[in-house]
Amino acid sequence: MRLQILGCWAAAPNSKHRTTSQVLEVNGHLLLLDCAEATQITLRQHRIKFTRIHHIFISHLHGDHVLGLVGLIMTFRMLNRAKPLHIYGPKGIKNFVCSQLKSLSAYTDYPLIFKELERNAPEVIFEDNKLKVTTIPLKHRIYANGYLFEEAPKDRKLLLSKVLNYNIDKAYFNSIKKGKDILLDSGVCIKNEELTEDPPPPKRYAFCTDTAYYPPIAEQLKKIGTIDVLYHEATFLNSHEHLCIPTGHSTAQQAGKIAKAAAVKQLILGHYSTRYGHLQAFIDESQIEFENTHLAIDGKVFEW
Amino acid sequence: MRLQILGCWAAAPNSKHRTTSQVLEVNGHLLLLDCAEATQITLRQHRIKFTRIHHIFISHLHGDHVLGLVGLIMTFRMLNRAKPLHIYGPKGIKNFVCSQLKSLSAYTDYPLIFKELERNAPEVIFEDNKLKVTTIPLKHRIYANGYLFEEAPKDRKLLLSKVLNYNIDKAYFNSIKKGKDILLDSGVCIKNEELTEDPPPPKRYAFCTDTAYYPPIAEQLKKIGTIDVLYHEATFLNSHEHLCIPTGHSTAQQAGKIAKAAAVKQLILGHYSTRYGHLQAFIDESQIEFENTHLAIDGKVFEW
Repeated sequence: MRLQILGCWAAAPNSKHRTTSQVLEVNGHLLLLDCAEATQITLRQHRIKFTRIHHIFISHLHGDHVLGLVGLIMTFRMLNRAKPLHIYGPKGIKNFVCSQLKSLSAYTDYPLIFKELERNAPEVIFEDNKLKVTTIPLKHRIYANGYLFEEAPKDRKLLLSKVLNYNIDKAYFNSIKKGKDILLDSGVCIKNEELTEDPPPPKRYAFCTDTAYYPPIAEQLKKIGTIDVLYHEATFLNSHEHLCIPTGHSTAQQAGKIAKAAAVKQLILGHYSTRYGHLQAFIDESQIEFENTHLAIDGKVFEW
Repeated sequence: MRLQILGCWAAAPNSKHRTTSQVLEVNGHLLLLDCAEATQITLRQHRIKFTRIHHIFISHLHGDHVLGLVGLIMTFRMLNRAKPLHIYGPKGIKNFVCSQLKSLSAYTDYPLIFKELERNAPEVIFEDNKLKVTTIPLKHRIYANGYLFEEAPKDRKLLLSKVLNYNIDKAYFNSIKKGKDILLDSGVCIKNEELTEDPPPPKRYAFCTDTAYYPPIAEQLKKIGTIDVLYHEATFLNSHEHLCIPTGHSTAQQAGKIAKAAAVKQLILGHYSTRYGHLQAFIDESQIEFENTHLAIDGKVFEW
């Protein structure tokens, strides 16, 4: 998986910082997560071939996560896009997009397919042979979802020496990789465990913004299995913890708590309030709870 | 007058170019003309104190002229703006803004005052003791207006030696500057022409985008008086003139024709199609008609 942060600040963009957008590459899929104002410009600046984007996941309908969406949709049309564009987001996102297109006498030549979300329990919203995407209900001022991106389970790993030893025909290799046992001509059944070993676990990325401290996030993630990377918002430092409940945001330490409780491998913080000049304190306060904490920075790439 | 080009390209922004926005400074007013995506970022990059903006003039409801408006309105709120913001634009602009604010659970603490335009004849839409703004009907695919920004007429210039010669009391100076005659104690009436001379002519800026070649623009401007600077769109070069009518745009040479017919002092071209690599041909083709042609460039400042 390859994650590039396009913007990771809260509230409003300025000359240095962009608000929330990310691109995630998984097994050939290029996904856009949130779409702040100027995302199409930032995509160009990072030379990302954005005609490869077919799925956009929107966390919630606040301006700093969604104001770049209509511009991007309109630019796709100018680029003569033909392939459908799938947009996942809270109920209301279709109206947000379509009412703007209508006001602007604009339309798309390509299909625009909305999946509007309104459930408060996790649901699988996309699945193919490469990727599965599940919602992660969050706790914000308005309805918001995180998203879990999970590689499709891989085939079992063939133990070639064993297979050759039994003189098994190549034609059976695929079904062995899928976990099937093999009946030899001699009538002997060879158990799959003898011929294969476990595939590497599917890689997983959890994108959680915006949210107050909300332990069910950790409970959901822990149940699923090992999460390689969790992006969790950290709008505030502990000095402003009193602002978390009224605004529906978290501190860096609370993000660390969620990472620890979910037993993820790595935590990335983002969505910093622009009131803070330096970001080191975000690392420091998160590390009280969870050591392997990293900072999102506009343009930064994470690979795992 | 001081004009700064924030963006001057057609269609969609990319890593190098922004679409249409400008700031115009006139006698203490800081005005925003059109508001493309990322305008709030560009304003910050040019260190323009955008809380000084109280009036925004939108030419027409196409994405490349208006997609930055809602982000800017929301950022004004975060900056605790209290003063009203006046937005002038085609009928439909209020719904474009307000439906987005509603979708985003957003509002403003400051008054948002819309002046929706739908007339096809010039009308004065703003006037105070510093500035007058008149619409310039354009010819585009959808309803569009240019805007004429005109300094308020200045007081007549007092000829101090004449005034002192007649021993006129200072208390009368203001009314003399306003053009009044003076009755001396001796009963003699002194005509204003003897005491004053004409003030410098009001400076004028005409902003005309997007529009096909439309001679009534020149007729309107010529009737008003000397226009110091005309910004006229020039989407195409002559090699693509056949695209002008279907798209509602102009060539550089057509922009030059309007400048010549309106007898303006200076022409600025902009709204270039991104199909062209170099801009020199825009100057060359406009200068077939009108010598004093200049190119808009993102960030460039014009003063007169």
